[in-house]
Amino acid sequence: MGNIYSTNYFVPFYHSDLKGDMAASAILNVALQVSGEQSAHLGRSEEWVMENYHYSWIVTEYEIDIKRLPKFLEEIVIETEAINYNKFFCYRDFRYKSKEGELLVNIHSTWVLMDSVSRKAGRVEEEIVKPYESEKINKIKRGHVFSKLENAKVKKYQIRYSDIDLNMHVNNSKYYEWAINPLGFDFLTHHRPKKIYIKYNHEILPGEQISSSVMLRDKISHHLINDNDAQIEIEWEKI
Amino acid sequence: MGNIYSTNYFVPFYHSDLKGDMAASAILNVALQVSGEQSAHLGRSEEWVMENYHYSWIVTEYEIDIKRLPKFLEEIVIETEAINYNKFFCYRDFRYKSKEGELLVNIHSTWVLMDSVSRKAGRVEEEIVKPYESEKINKIKRGHVFSKLENAKVKKYQIRYSDIDLNMHVNNSKYYEWAINPLGFDFLTHHRPKKIYIKYNHEILPGEQISSSVMLRDKISHHLINDNDAQIEIEWEKI
Repeated sequence: MGNIYSTNYFVPFYHSDLKGDMAASAILNVALQVSGEQSAHLGRSEEWVMENYHYSWIVTEYEIDIKRLPKFLEEIVIETEAINYNKFFCYRDFRYKSKEGELLVNIHSTWVLMDSVSRKAGRVEEEIVKPYESEKINKIKRGHVFSKLENAKVKKYQIRYSDIDLNMHVNNSKYYEWAINPLGFDFLTHHRPKKIYIKYNHEILPGEQISSSVMLRDKISHHLINDNDAQIEIEWEKI
Repeated sequence: MGNIYSTNYFVPFYHSDLKGDMAASAILNVALQVSGEQSAHLGRSEEWVMENYHYSWIVTEYEIDIKRLPKFLEEIVIETEAINYNKFFCYRDFRYKSKEGELLVNIHSTWVLMDSVSRKAGRVEEEIVKPYESEKINKIKRGHVFSKLENAKVKKYQIRYSDIDLNMHVNNSKYYEWAINPLGFDFLTHHRPKKIYIKYNHEILPGEQISSSVMLRDKISHHLINDNDAQIEIEWEKI
């Protein structure tokens, strides 16, 4: 187990969806921000990693358990902890808690260090991860196995300039927005996500259009972004 | 002149564009949040206004002067002040400043109180605005006069679920994103906005598609969202 970094957070208007819940995409954005804060705090800022190794941190997988979504204007506590790592992958948890300490959202995430030149995963160097005091393991964890989509509904979306982040590719929170949208406004206003799996297979660079495919079966929606750029599975509960 | 409310702010990853600038749409989102904080602080929260008058605050116009955009991870100070008001309109300024007090972004904004039933502008009641200590004026300020578009380039965008906010309409920062996007990735990576005018004529409700029209002339881009739902004008500088 590693160092735990913790921060207080108020859920602002721009991170709330129309139901007054903190949007799942905002939960991912804030998680990235909080892990970046921990890294800077430990002398391993994005800039340090880039200058010394030409690497950027990239999330490849998320597993998100939602007991209750934080609410608009709720004051919450966000904890993050680098759990362990092997030659290529680092595993990091996030815990969104109420002010009273109740666990609201639990996130397991898998990270790689992307080489900024080759845009491929680089080796996890001891010097980069040492300050987090996470455990070195040999095992490469198996991720979630996603179902194949059949008779999927497909929608096309224009990539917006604002979808591209500082890493010069589509921000990882945008895949989730594209994924859920074809479920339709009525479904989304009457359901909440309980469990989310996301696997990013290929980064999406600035361009014109992406396709978002969805198959909904028994309160579980299965998603593909483009042919196989990202796979997403969401378990929903009716409100 | 009214009460000044001030808050410190770090520009996070999710509010930065690919150039490392704070995105103009994020500046608008954070401004809304900060004015909401002032209102709550003065006992006039969104909930109070809704419960007592069935009103929501809606921005109808922005005039934004940008001396320098705040940078990713920069610590800035954001001030807001309700300047004055008449029967239907309230005028509020925002000032984004560097830690050293240098004015980076100055915003004049015009607000109405939207009746949640009729979805039309309601009368500004003394009880609502008194705590801000802004000046009552009779004059209705004239807004910016926008040019007519000729030979505009038009793009269609799908409205995403995440574009809709707690007021059950498209969030006002999204219009700007739709507007700039047809200028193209290459233009947007090599230009920065210096001056922005936005006028919201009609709210956009959840639906399928919007159109974004643009005419670019001498470093000034002129925009329409749908036929006339919003007008935007942006003066750009080359980087």
